[in-house]
Amino acid sequence: MRISRIQTSDGTVTHAFAEGDSWVPCGDPYEAFAHGEEPTRQGEPIADATLLAPAEPRIVVGIAQNGPEHPSPVQAWLKSPRTVVPSGTPVELRRNVGKVVIEGEVCVVIGRDALDVPVEDAHTVILGLTAVNDISNPERGSVDPRNFEGKGGVGYTPLGPWIETSADLAGAELEVRINGERTVLTGSHELPAGVAECVAYVTSWVPLGPGDIIMTGAPKSAFPAEPGDLVEITVAGVPLVTPCV
Amino acid sequence: MRISRIQTSDGTVTHAFAEGDSWVPCGDPYEAFAHGEEPTRQGEPIADATLLAPAEPRIVVGIAQNGPEHPSPVQAWLKSPRTVVPSGTPVELRRNVGKVVIEGEVCVVIGRDALDVPVEDAHTVILGLTAVNDISNPERGSVDPRNFEGKGGVGYTPLGPWIETSADLAGAELEVRINGERTVLTGSHELPAGVAECVAYVTSWVPLGPGDIIMTGAPKSAFPAEPGDLVEITVAGVPLVTPCV
Repeated sequence: MRISRIQTSDGTVTHAFAEGDSWVPCGDPYEAFAHGEEPTRQGEPIADATLLAPAEPRIVVGIAQNGPEHPSPVQAWLKSPRTVVPSGTPVELRRNVGKVVIEGEVCVVIGRDALDVPVEDAHTVILGLTAVNDISNPERGSVDPRNFEGKGGVGYTPLGPWIETSADLAGAELEVRINGERTVLTGSHELPAGVAECVAYVTSWVPLGPGDIIMTGAPKSAFPAEPGDLVEITVAGVPLVTPCV
Repeated sequence: MRISRIQTSDGTVTHAFAEGDSWVPCGDPYEAFAHGEEPTRQGEPIADATLLAPAEPRIVVGIAQNGPEHPSPVQAWLKSPRTVVPSGTPVELRRNVGKVVIEGEVCVVIGRDALDVPVEDAHTVILGLTAVNDISNPERGSVDPRNFEGKGGVGYTPLGPWIETSADLAGAELEVRINGERTVLTGSHELPAGVAECVAYVTSWVPLGPGDIIMTGAPKSAFPAEPGDLVEITVAGVPLVTPCV
């Protein structure tokens, strides 16, 4: 099932699920998830809905040291949830603070309160997967060891456009295209710490809740970007577009 | 003016301002602040209100390297907003991950959207000051350079109980007492980067908004704590209590 948040032509914001090419307004998907159910239909299909960011995280966790070039174990950091923007939003790359890097990542959307979740139970707290672009100015790292300055730019976390609830957590495909050319085809199977391990690690230290997201790290999926580039990141069929300006 | 969030005996949650020993339900203080006004009275004074955390931050910023023992310039990091709890909440100190440190800090509550705010204009985006206890397990720092593991414990950010809107930003007094004994009397004047400088630094990198908070760092105000300790932190007259369990 595809779940997102939409804004209708009269300005109403609601959760919705996909039905063909339309979106059907629905009840709170997190409440339904907590009861092991699918969200309830609450209106007629809408053909021309505007898709918002599919989640409103209170917490955005980034996983560090989770590429094939890094040694285990993983680490983590927090990114500002105010940086989250919908797919299609033009993002202004910060100038004069070193190069800009885009990172296509498999993004976990947490479905319910989660603390100390064992690896084997991780799937029970995951609503689904979506695509995220973890944009940053990594050269700030030399003076900013806590990933604050280089990660907080306006619009630096494009997310969505929807959550795929039936994605294969261990085998979610991740593709990055820049200006139409594929730069990498990889997936969650290439992460040293997989989706379930990331959930277990994060929740062993920090409580998460409905709508929070974990950016699982970059399996060779980080690339420099320039103004004018069009970045397309697809995760488990979820197609995220970021026009860089 | 003292502003907080209260829960009344029928369960209603609302903003409120202090009038003597009572709390008067009021309109949104951030909307009023944006118009240069005080929040409007919306009910009768309540004598037995339960005080909640006075703000619901989307972003909790910690300032690092801002004690007299640190060299400038300051740095920053993000703490999970899910760690925020009201004054009086018993906080379970995490066992088996090294010592626990409490840090009494002057806490800035942001009143409106703020980006690239010059030092001289910082007061125009600050709703007021409150007290915060930045609890952590600092020994995790050796394996956790981004302040993730050691800062995310349940209840690790006691806040409040109210926001003082008329506090002296440059001269806010900060007192820490542990089990009734004063361990330090200091204030924002002892911070190498003061309140206004912290706001300017943070907003030069990361957009903030209404209710977000900045913990300005520890001017000699960090101390080890043990289960059973009662920690009292007073900032500009705002008295925060943390029973450690």
